[in-house]
Amino acid sequence: MFLKKLGEEEIIRSLAERFSRKHPRLIKGIGDDTSVTFQRGDKVQLATTDILIEDTHFRLSYTPPYFLGRKSLNISVSDIAAMGGAALFFLVSIALPENTTKGFLDELYRGIDDAARECGAILAGGNTARTEGKMMVSTTVLGEAQKDKVVYRSGARPGDIIYVTGTLGDSALGLKALKSHGKDAIKKGPFKNAVLRHLDPAPRVEAGDQLAKKKLASAMMDISDGLALDLKRLCLESKAAAIIELYKLPTSADFRKFSGISKNALLNLALSGGEDYELLFTSPEENSKKIASLSKKLKLPITPIGRITPLKDKNKVITVIDEHGLPIKVEKLGFEHF
Amino acid sequence: MFLKKLGEEEIIRSLAERFSRKHPRLIKGIGDDTSVTFQRGDKVQLATTDILIEDTHFRLSYTPPYFLGRKSLNISVSDIAAMGGAALFFLVSIALPENTTKGFLDELYRGIDDAARECGAILAGGNTARTEGKMMVSTTVLGEAQKDKVVYRSGARPGDIIYVTGTLGDSALGLKALKSHGKDAIKKGPFKNAVLRHLDPAPRVEAGDQLAKKKLASAMMDISDGLALDLKRLCLESKAAAIIELYKLPTSADFRKFSGISKNALLNLALSGGEDYELLFTSPEENSKKIASLSKKLKLPITPIGRITPLKDKNKVITVIDEHGLPIKVEKLGFEHF
Repeated sequence: MFLKKLGEEEIIRSLAERFSRKHPRLIKGIGDDTSVTFQRGDKVQLATTDILIEDTHFRLSYTPPYFLGRKSLNISVSDIAAMGGAALFFLVSIALPENTTKGFLDELYRGIDDAARECGAILAGGNTARTEGKMMVSTTVLGEAQKDKVVYRSGARPGDIIYVTGTLGDSALGLKALKSHGKDAIKKGPFKNAVLRHLDPAPRVEAGDQLAKKKLASAMMDISDGLALDLKRLCLESKAAAIIELYKLPTSADFRKFSGISKNALLNLALSGGEDYELLFTSPEENSKKIASLSKKLKLPITPIGRITPLKDKNKVITVIDEHGLPIKVEKLGFEHF
Repeated sequence: MFLKKLGEEEIIRSLAERFSRKHPRLIKGIGDDTSVTFQRGDKVQLATTDILIEDTHFRLSYTPPYFLGRKSLNISVSDIAAMGGAALFFLVSIALPENTTKGFLDELYRGIDDAARECGAILAGGNTARTEGKMMVSTTVLGEAQKDKVVYRSGARPGDIIYVTGTLGDSALGLKALKSHGKDAIKKGPFKNAVLRHLDPAPRVEAGDQLAKKKLASAMMDISDGLALDLKRLCLESKAAAIIELYKLPTSADFRKFSGISKNALLNLALSGGEDYELLFTSPEENSKKIASLSKKLKLPITPIGRITPLKDKNKVITVIDEHGLPIKVEKLGFEHF
């Protein structure tokens, strides 16, 4: 059987099953944004790894190497932020075709370097290898957090309100614009901001830190494969289900102005489009005022979009409802590799 | 300028230069087998990353997925061992073509799993992505060591004796056999052992641990790109030079029997062939008896092959001499990617 037929969930499941051994210092292995391992005292260590592959995750025709460098680090920093931790060190492996130019590599490094300065992480190791295939950047970020402040995916409880930071769908819209117009879409055109959201996502480091420190999130993760699919993952880890109110999804002004596709298709982008790198978290209703004032303080929208419910049927974890409270059929929850 | 023209040393140099920032907890960044970061108490954390790319590091035509899995972890465990540390956790990113079979993936995982059991490391994270290009396995291993027992590349001093564990050149010879005979070379033929050394190298975990604990190594690293090139790197970190006595290089019986190439070409394989994954270390002469008895205890050859000398000329770090003490011209020190 080929992986395409098997599906990504099944690949991850079989991996987790095989490697589910315990270790006295492993608090959380596979199944969250990062692993959590016990250090000493009140600190835990966070570790996460990500990979960006040419023509799978990005195309050179529209991806400036500077942004590729930034993104390769920032998507893992986003995972650390989603645990309520801080990035400390990172390692990077780069596979490059022989005809890559020095100028390209310099820009890639400059992007990694700028992203590292912004989050305070230090390069601790790396290697560069030649490939006869696609370019690839693999990044591992090590971080740490207070042991009693780490936020897992598994803490959501029925009744909790579901929140997202920022706006959804811009990245998916930006990708559409890049695919249609190439690099030109970066500098001009009505979707410049959406394009930048795709090429240069900002990890929500401060929001993750504050939500964890103030103990405002019962469960948290970052949205990388689309809200609906990632919320499903959070729910399954929490042994819960969720209702999403589609019309409440926060979108940007640029996003709402887009007229290239139907209104329904547009809402689907916000629901299922990948690579938002916003935080998705749950919180008991009593925290709603504190969350509103944190949003104000951070100057970052934090929007309630639905509610956690009891899990009754593992095949029906996510229910999406329209403005009349009626369930909507969702074709595709989000992005899966296989 | 293309990377091929720039050369690998220059790529690493420019990377190290750009990212040479300091952090109170970073004891050693780029420039050794692993990074070393301060934890708490008397422990330091080790982290290293490696990558295996199809058609750069291995060919599917002769590489069983089980061995690919083992090797992807073991080459990083070898780096941890070369610091005198122990592997604790690892993360793995795998890029797979869509038509990869479930059977292939199962075997790959089984290999990773077996290698992990052998060294006691636990999977802490990973991800699997589709690629339209070459298959790729990127592994990051986290380990730890006693702070005062870590062995760096930089501790070699003029007068120190240079040692290697095991035998050299088998892996390079095995690769030759695989390229000529494909998978058949694994099961039969006179180079079965050499072939296994290439496909399934054994990290010298116990030797690394003992050498560090007994403080017998002034500098240490593992040999991945060929003895001569790696010794040059160790020397440069130690601000020293070295003399290698070519006829002292330890080789296996199978290796010495090989008659497919000239005796000179054969010695060059032992000197410059890559992927031995043996330990290369230096030690003051007074330790020679202790090292001989450690070799006996571990049932692992540990062979003196030369001596550290003062560095007089940065363009002449490694001198190779024949049995008459006369210098030999070496065409190529080892494997470089660009």
